[in-house]
This record gives sequence, C-alpha cells and structure tokens, in this order.
Amino acid sequence: MSASNTPEAVFVRACRGQAVPYTPVWFMRQAGRSLPEYRKAREGIAMLDACRRPDLVCELTLQPVRRHVVDAAILFSDIVLPLAEIGVKVEIVAGVGPVVAEPIRDEAAVAKLRPLLPERLDYVAEAVRLTVAELSGTPLIGFAGAPFTLASYLVEGGPSRQYERTKAMMYRWPDVWHALCSQLAETALEFLRVQVAAGVSAVQLFDSWAGALSEADYRRFVMPHSAHVLRGLSDAGVPRIHFGLGTGHLLAPMAQAGADVVGVDWRTPLSSAAQAVGSGVALQGNLEPAALFAPWPVVEAEVRRVLEEAGTATGHVFNLGHGVLPETDPDVLTRVVALVHEASAR
Amino acid sequence: MSASNTPEAVFVRACRGQAVPYTPVWFMRQAGRSLPEYRKAREGIAMLDACRRPDLVCELTLQPVRRHVVDAAILFSDIVLPLAEIGVKVEIVAGVGPVVAEPIRDEAAVAKLRPLLPERLDYVAEAVRLTVAELSGTPLIGFAGAPFTLASYLVEGGPSRQYERTKAMMYRWPDVWHALCSQLAETALEFLRVQVAAGVSAVQLFDSWAGALSEADYRRFVMPHSAHVLRGLSDAGVPRIHFGLGTGHLLAPMAQAGADVVGVDWRTPLSSAAQAVGSGVALQGNLEPAALFAPWPVVEAEVRRVLEEAGTATGHVFNLGHGVLPETDPDVLTRVVALVHEASAR
Repeated sequence: MSASNTPEAVFVRACRGQAVPYTPVWFMRQAGRSLPEYRKAREGIAMLDACRRPDLVCELTLQPVRRHVVDAAILFSDIVLPLAEIGVKVEIVAGVGPVVAEPIRDEAAVAKLRPLLPERLDYVAEAVRLTVAELSGTPLIGFAGAPFTLASYLVEGGPSRQYERTKAMMYRWPDVWHALCSQLAETALEFLRVQVAAGVSAVQLFDSWAGALSEADYRRFVMPHSAHVLRGLSDAGVPRIHFGLGTGHLLAPMAQAGADVVGVDWRTPLSSAAQAVGSGVALQGNLEPAALFAPWPVVEAEVRRVLEEAGTATGHVFNLGHGVLPETDPDVLTRVVALVHEASAR
Repeated sequence: MSASNTPEAVFVRACRGQAVPYTPVWFMRQAGRSLPEYRKAREGIAMLDACRRPDLVCELTLQPVRRHVVDAAILFSDIVLPLAEIGVKVEIVAGVGPVVAEPIRDEAAVAKLRPLLPERLDYVAEAVRLTVAELSGTPLIGFAGAPFTLASYLVEGGPSRQYERTKAMMYRWPDVWHALCSQLAETALEFLRVQVAAGVSAVQLFDSWAGALSEADYRRFVMPHSAHVLRGLSDAGVPRIHFGLGTGHLLAPMAQAGADVVGVDWRTPLSSAAQAVGSGVALQGNLEPAALFAPWPVVEAEVRRVLEEAGTATGHVFNLGHGVLPETDPDVLTRVVALVHEASAR
C-alpha cells in the first residue's frame, strides 16, 4: 500500500474533505457487546474499572479492528470517566447507564466540582500510547462528552427521557447552568488534550442528548460551551467530529461550534445534512443501526443509498447513525465494511 | 358571547383553518399531575382503573377547564386502554409507563390479538357523554395511540429508548410487522369511533415515538396504518390532529396521512412546520414545556414568539410541544392561557 492508501490517510483525509481512494468506515460502539470476544473480555469487570485498565482498553479497542478491518479504531472509554476525577461519584449500572450518587442541582454543588488535573488521567494516556503502538497505522479516535450531555447526567442523576431538571436549571438559574457547563467544557477539553498528547489521530465530541433542545436554546445555552471545547483544539492538528442524536435541526450550529466533521443520525438524509452544514465541513454517518437486522439485500441497498446521499458532502466517513445495537450480528458489520470499500472505490 | 365566539367555535374553526377572533389554547396532559386537585382525586387509584370510571374521568377532564379556562378539554384516558380489550395484559406502572406482561414478538402472538368490540368500551362512551354534558360548550378532544407507538409498547414490553426490538421486527419480518399494525390501526380507529359517536368534537392521534424513524421508513412501515385510522374518520365531521415528538422530519407525511392539524414539538419553529405541511393543514404547538419553569418575562417572550412564528400557518391552536411536566406551576399555565388570548386577539 502506498502512503495515501494507508487507513490513517484515508480516514483523516476524508475528515478534512480531501480526496480519498474509497470512503472510510468505522462504527460507533464497534468495541462493544455485539462482539463475543468483547463480552468474554469484559466478563465480571465493571465498565469504569475496564476503562481504567490500559491493557484491557487496548485489547477491547483492537478487537473490532481485527475482526471488521475498519478504517479507524475508537478508544474504549466512557464520557463520564473524567467526571469521577473532578469529584463526582458516578458508576455505570448495567442496563441503566451512568448513575450519579449526588445529583448537581444548585450553585453550591457546582462550586464543589474540581478542575481536572491531567495527571489524574495517566491511565488514559497510557492506554492511548499502548493502543496506538498496537494499531500500527490504523488511526485511533479519542472522544469526550459535550457539556450539555454531561450536565444532563449530573443534574438528572442518570439517563433521562425529558431532561426536565436539566432544562429547569437552564431556564430558572441560567447563571448556575453556565457555571456548570463552563466547568464541564474545561473538563472535556482537558480529557481530549490528554488523548491528543498521547497520540490519537482524531477526536469526537459526543453531545448525544443535545437534540432535546430547540435551535434557539442550543445556541444560547449549549453552543458556547461546546465551541470552547472544539476551538480549544483548533491547533491540535487532529480533525474534530461533533455528533448528537436527533440533531437534524442543530446541524448548522453544531458545525459552527468548530467541527471539521458533523455526525448525523439516520433521521436526516446526508444530502440534507450537507446543505445544512455548508461546504467545508465533512459528514459522518448515517445508516439506521436497526437496518442491520434486515436480510442482506436490504442492508446492501441501504448502504448504497447512504453512500449515494453523501455524494454532495465535502467529505464522508461512513458510520451508523448511532451505536451498534448489542443484538447485531458482527458478521453483517464485517460485510458492510467490505461493501462500503468496494462500492465507493474511485 | 355570540355563537362564533364560543370556545367550541374558536377551537374547531382554528383546526379547520378558518378565521378566529383569537388563537385557541389547550395543553397536552393538562389533566394531570401538575394540578393538586388531580393528585388528590387520583390518590390510590391505578391509572387504567381511573380511566374506567366515567365519574372520575369526567371530573379529571374538567379540572383544567375550570382552572385555566382553556379552549378545549381532552378526555382523561390512556392510549393503551383499548389494548386491554383486545387481549393484551397491560398496566401502567407509576414512574415507568405502560408495561406489557407478554410482549408480542412473533406471528403467533399477533394472531392471538382480538378485534376490538365497541361494546367493550361502553365505559368510554359513557364518560364522553357525561363529560360533554358537563362541559356545556367547551369542545372535548378524544384521542388514540397510533399503530407505531402502540406497537412499540407491545413489542418492547414497555417504554424504550432505541426501539431495538420494534425496528428488528420491521426489518426482519415486515409481514408480521404489517399484520400487527393493521390490527392496531383497526383498534385505534374503533376506539376513536366510539368517542366520536359519544360526542367528542375533535380527535388527536398520538404517534408519540414515530420520530425514531427516518422518513423513508415512516412512509414504508407506518404511514399506511396511520392513514387507515385518519382516513377512516374523514366522514366523521371532526378535525383530526396528528402529533408525535421529534417529528420535524416527518411533518409532511404526517399531514399527508390525513390530518387536518399537525402537532409540532418545540424543536421545529412553526414557520418551518407551516412550510413542511403546506397550505390547508393547521398547526398545533409548540412552546417548550420546560420554558414554563422560567421567570414570567421569559415565559411571556416565548409565548409571543410562538404566536409570531405561527403567523404563516393555515390555522393555529396554541399548545405546548409535549405534555405538561409534573413540576409545572399551574398558575403559570393559567397566565399563559390569558396571554395567548390577549396577545392574539384580532
């Protein structure tokens, strides 16, 4: 393979909107429960404990790369991991999600949060270095949770459907809200800086739940904080991907916040997304994760449709519109990778 | 009051896109936990038991009309109520939502569902008659759950975040999916017919969770069944409202399914929604429910913004973008009704 054909070159070039020989592909939650080797390696180990073991992080990160031959790896980690290092008692409960023992609902609770000291994340830096060495060329994506999404866990105390308390804080006490998000933006930025310094080739900022807000509220209450994270990495030399679920109405401000790539879920055709983000911003996505349950001819048609709809985008990284569902047959994922490469070959 | 100024005339006329002296307003879940008199009346009575007691249904339906002087009442009921009459063991668990004892996941389970016999809903008809009499002119809205939303509870066994099993059925066994939705469409239609025959002035079809689908999947897997319900009422003489959360990308097909009014959540400005549904279809919505937690000047500005954005719509019924949140101060709701009437007076 020539240098321009290495997976790193292809994935990073697509993120930058540069010409590529084929469309690169990876899957959100590719390191996860869809893989039997993942379930075996994780057996009896709590999620956040697993994130703190560099050898295990390396193994779990590499599993889908070995199996599917994707164009990028994503660090096995969790967006709430750095919260534990700023004074939050958080654990990830199987079948529930992140649970915060003492939800943050007033100024005093915000004031108790500590700045994130990078040395508290030495285990993350070590995991990144170890994984980059083992990946021998395949780029590694680092990631963090965006301020709104992190705040929602802290304020609600866990996953939420309506974000009632989070929005109540935004509307009732905007100063407390902005203080909390400023602190979380600093935390996310520091978490990403540690990963960049240790060698990741790109970063993704997950604002998974920002789609719960109107565009006006997003611009007022969230965008400045996410922009602080993304713009804080403008000199880091790595592409910045910005993703949230159900954000069809927020794609323009999410791009404007400082993204090189905007991740799109399955609800918005990439052709519409390309118009929304404008030229100069690449797209990532957006196959419906549940479509992988269909018979192969349907999967194939859906993959080809996504590639076609991406035609007008500045650059395209193929992905699902959200994480791999646990019941997904991993062999289908492997076939999708091969199909994307073959169907997009230029 | 002259006849054209009765609340019925105003609400029904707005639904039909006809001229009105002011914008009518009601709130989804106005008969609910935000009211102390509701919490008192419901104390110790399970949700579905309450729905089966005509005297209690009447009282709960009237409470918000008395308190807020809204332009329409909505029958106190639940979308899963008719499921219990077609052979489903379902209950509503406080803090969880509808729970189905034996989820429906294959053809055999679908085949066991029975047609809905209207006489099984005599208690609904009686509740409607009693309530209409007590309302003395304020129109009563009846409602049902749309096939996708009902199916999601039946297939998942309860509320869901990702609708993984529901979508798996759609993609893996489309014939089973369509058989299930056909049956649910008939059930919803029969449930609405009972309410119309007993005297409701309008109906709302709740497809609360349809926003989880792409437009292509909505059109293929859902729209024909919802259209069966809505078109089945085209001669009923009552406006048909069609609502789902996070359906900014589905407003056009939701209108095309046979709606006179499309309900819009707070994510889509009504000016954009008006373009999406086209002329001839009215809009309902769309204040962010959590905005009611803000200080009054913010609430007032948001209400005025919604009224202004509705300017181009064929007709407008003011509402929230989703149900009243339980922590909402009912006095704020009362003020919103007065403000909508005053600010929209023509």
